[in-house]
Amino acid sequence: MLAPVLFFGNGVAVKRLVLGVQYDGGSWQGWQTQPSGNTVQDALERALQQFTKAEIKTTCAGRTDAGVHGIEQVVHFDCDLVREPYSWVNGVNAFLPASVAVQWVKELPLDTESEDNFHARFSARARTYHYILHNAAIRSPMWSGRAGWTFRALDVERMRAAATHLLGEHDFSAFRASGCQAKTPVKHMYDIQVRRQGEMIIFTLRASAFLHHMVRNIVGSLIFVGTGKREPEWMGEVLASMNREIAAPTFMPDGLYLARIDYEDKWGLPQRDLVETLAFLSFL
Amino acid sequence: MLAPVLFFGNGVAVKRLVLGVQYDGGSWQGWQTQPSGNTVQDALERALQQFTKAEIKTTCAGRTDAGVHGIEQVVHFDCDLVREPYSWVNGVNAFLPASVAVQWVKELPLDTESEDNFHARFSARARTYHYILHNAAIRSPMWSGRAGWTFRALDVERMRAAATHLLGEHDFSAFRASGCQAKTPVKHMYDIQVRRQGEMIIFTLRASAFLHHMVRNIVGSLIFVGTGKREPEWMGEVLASMNREIAAPTFMPDGLYLARIDYEDKWGLPQRDLVETLAFLSFL
Repeated sequence: MLAPVLFFGNGVAVKRLVLGVQYDGGSWQGWQTQPSGNTVQDALERALQQFTKAEIKTTCAGRTDAGVHGIEQVVHFDCDLVREPYSWVNGVNAFLPASVAVQWVKELPLDTESEDNFHARFSARARTYHYILHNAAIRSPMWSGRAGWTFRALDVERMRAAATHLLGEHDFSAFRASGCQAKTPVKHMYDIQVRRQGEMIIFTLRASAFLHHMVRNIVGSLIFVGTGKREPEWMGEVLASMNREIAAPTFMPDGLYLARIDYEDKWGLPQRDLVETLAFLSFL
Repeated sequence: MLAPVLFFGNGVAVKRLVLGVQYDGGSWQGWQTQPSGNTVQDALERALQQFTKAEIKTTCAGRTDAGVHGIEQVVHFDCDLVREPYSWVNGVNAFLPASVAVQWVKELPLDTESEDNFHARFSARARTYHYILHNAAIRSPMWSGRAGWTFRALDVERMRAAATHLLGEHDFSAFRASGCQAKTPVKHMYDIQVRRQGEMIIFTLRASAFLHHMVRNIVGSLIFVGTGKREPEWMGEVLASMNREIAAPTFMPDGLYLARIDYEDKWGLPQRDLVETLAFLSFL
């Protein structure tokens, strides 16, 4: 028996299209559409409309703030247009500015009577962010807008010790922005890596989901430990307090990269792996 | 006997100050001062004037074009202001935009009756540029303005073979822009490295000096060989022709970085070494 599918007026089957989208967030007012039209979602939807000649509304895996970058954001929308994947990628990219580009596309079936359709946000199993920090006495124009900057020397071992307090399932209210719209502050932190490479420190956080400003609030707090202003155990106290007043101020967006969204293999998405999302910004 | 030194009206000895300057060239109309005031030199001289309260004219080691970056440009100027090096660096940087920053300063004596004063351009023994190329089917916003892009697969071994034809002292007129103001087209090419790291290809060229557009014309021509459009031996024919009509078009400025200027050790400049100039843009 054939599964029920959605048809438009012209009788063509509607499919669910999934895109991997990369962007430099420096010149955008974040991901989510705004009346100004100056967001990544606005730019993407304008390009999709020009390519498909239809009005397209997209849903993303994780909305990013102004100045935050996407190495691999995942987006879906529904459409009846039939095109080869390379045609989607090159066609839409022709209408996008240099700071945004579709990296891959995957066509999936859409069964309106099923609850098992792919959904960029609800199907996501985990999210990974990198925070890139330039730790040097003098600021670097090479990293302006691409990395955070701290001139005080940071102790990576202390920051690693502090990070262990955040692993596992917790109420992360202490690291949650006041305007956060998440249903629950309880998230599962799977992994936090802190690595140094010369003057650069890379924080990699993987969790079931993140609250608004959560990565930047955690990184800011880890830096307090890294400079010696706080002890590693303080991180556990901040978490237990569930009080946003105690953690460090929200750290600058410049170094934050949405790196990877995990989905079940059954969707067959041609995603980059996590090592690649770091290697992407490197060439030594 | 004391060497004769230059004094300003107030009787304070004038010194020659040498700066290491880093910049992201993406938002500037090149290095050299323009009536628009929108060049790196203009930004630097405005900041120096604000810090010193004096009108300062700077001389650089190598002028870069619009969109070309400087990991370590070297600049000198004369001034009677007495400040500690860290005060110069932090003080001038406070007046510079995020895309430009002084990295170090060195105070040297100025003897107006000697011909052996340090000069950013005339004392330079060699220049090194990196050209960073993203070689991938789909363009990347992560590298927009920071790397050139070629979607055709490039063969690094063929490009290395082609590059050997350029080593040594030659008339480089075939790779010289028509408006080039150099006294002679004869330069000594000391070294050309071509390396691949994942999707990135890094060209590193070191020569006594470079003509206008020379690196970008050479890289464009190497890419012709890398795609198979020309044979490696063609590079020798282009060089021998001394005819700019034969080489490839000038390649985009986005991936070009002035990396390092070599001076004699006697000046004691606190420069980055060449490995560091590459590592600077890397964190894996």
